[in-house]
Amino acid sequence: MQKYFIESSDFEQRKITTDDAFHICKVMRFKKGEEVLVGVDSKTFLVSLDNITEKSVSFNVIKEIEKNNELPVNVTIIQGYPKGDKFEEVIKHGVELGAYEFIPCLMKRSQFNVDEKRKDGKIIRFNKISKEAAEQSFRAYPPKVLPFMNLKQIDLESFDLVVLCYEEDAKNGELENYKTAIKKLEKGKKVAIIVGPEGGISVEELDYLSQKNNVVVAALGPRILRTETVVFYALSTISYEMELKECIK
Amino acid sequence: MQKYFIESSDFEQRKITTDDAFHICKVMRFKKGEEVLVGVDSKTFLVSLDNITEKSVSFNVIKEIEKNNELPVNVTIIQGYPKGDKFEEVIKHGVELGAYEFIPCLMKRSQFNVDEKRKDGKIIRFNKISKEAAEQSFRAYPPKVLPFMNLKQIDLESFDLVVLCYEEDAKNGELENYKTAIKKLEKGKKVAIIVGPEGGISVEELDYLSQKNNVVVAALGPRILRTETVVFYALSTISYEMELKECIK
Repeated sequence: MQKYFIESSDFEQRKITTDDAFHICKVMRFKKGEEVLVGVDSKTFLVSLDNITEKSVSFNVIKEIEKNNELPVNVTIIQGYPKGDKFEEVIKHGVELGAYEFIPCLMKRSQFNVDEKRKDGKIIRFNKISKEAAEQSFRAYPPKVLPFMNLKQIDLESFDLVVLCYEEDAKNGELENYKTAIKKLEKGKKVAIIVGPEGGISVEELDYLSQKNNVVVAALGPRILRTETVVFYALSTISYEMELKECIK
Repeated sequence: MQKYFIESSDFEQRKITTDDAFHICKVMRFKKGEEVLVGVDSKTFLVSLDNITEKSVSFNVIKEIEKNNELPVNVTIIQGYPKGDKFEEVIKHGVELGAYEFIPCLMKRSQFNVDEKRKDGKIIRFNKISKEAAEQSFRAYPPKVLPFMNLKQIDLESFDLVVLCYEEDAKNGELENYKTAIKKLEKGKKVAIIVGPEGGISVEELDYLSQKNNVVVAALGPRILRTETVVFYALSTISYEMELKECIK
């Protein structure tokens, strides 16, 4: 079933506006009486479509859907801004895998050629990608993509746990730190996953992060992973650890 | 350090031929005396380059590298052939995450428009992608991409465990089968992960697979994942379960 995230002001008036009205009218060609899901303020409602035009679609609420598919912890992805369109891939798959929000982080080895004027446009585009991925994977909310920041602009103290994924550790055979930290996580905690760009984390960045009490430097398995793959590994394994159960017979 | 997989016949003669010689000579512009890694028959050697031309590069073996980064179980990815170039994405990231081999499986809902003549060319291309990904991620061998098959052509009895990733289970809230199966795995076992194409597994395919003793039908977490993301989840979590350790203090 199709899902659309809307603003609470629109929800109060029981209407869908913006590009979504166009999508309902012209792309999906829904008719009056057909049902879709509407997401608002992390809640999901089953609604029946009423009057449909390409600028505005009115609807009636049938019921609230109580099911919650969200990860039991809030995972913020702090991604060293990578080359090309890899950050979009991180958002797309990261949203599916349950990320809470994303920070494109300008690290020392980020190759970033976007001028200041175009930065805002990029962030708008990233948030659109997140919204679409969240609609497709029936998330309760579209994860936010925050503005470009450097490491020192991020309030790392606000997290219960910060995992710095460090490939040099993988080369040295360190295989304990990640699982040990994830096993201790409790529901409702705030976690940050820091991933370097293609060239990795610089020595200065490692020093800065290592001084913080809540930062765990860890390898995610013994193989060297590409920057975008690290996020998939982290989110998948947090889900495995916290959401899946073992049936002991 | 750059790694190249070569044939054992070339290794015996201490030479690198094929595209790799061109890569060493013209792309990397290595000089005599520089060191690279050579992979042959799942072994890895540190070698010193000797005479370099774009058709053939001779080398001297310095030593064998004993380090092994392979997953402790052999994981065969049986991927319902997806749209576009998603199968290439599955290979690229799947190799990094430790897959043993890949089978492009023509399932009922695979949208497959490649004519017979072009099939072989596709498989050659897929194996090339696998080789490059394996060189980049320092795998011991390039995982094989087998020819296109349908489900009934695959000898499923040869596996110790077959996991059928089934999204309807995710919708129904089944969260026990996968972890229960993975927790029981022992080193050296053969595992197959079956993933449907975009439209999912058909009822007939589900029936056929459900009759087999070694098949576990399971959801990989509560969220609906894209077909390519399922493979990342499966391989990451097998690594987490079997390769990472918890330090209990």
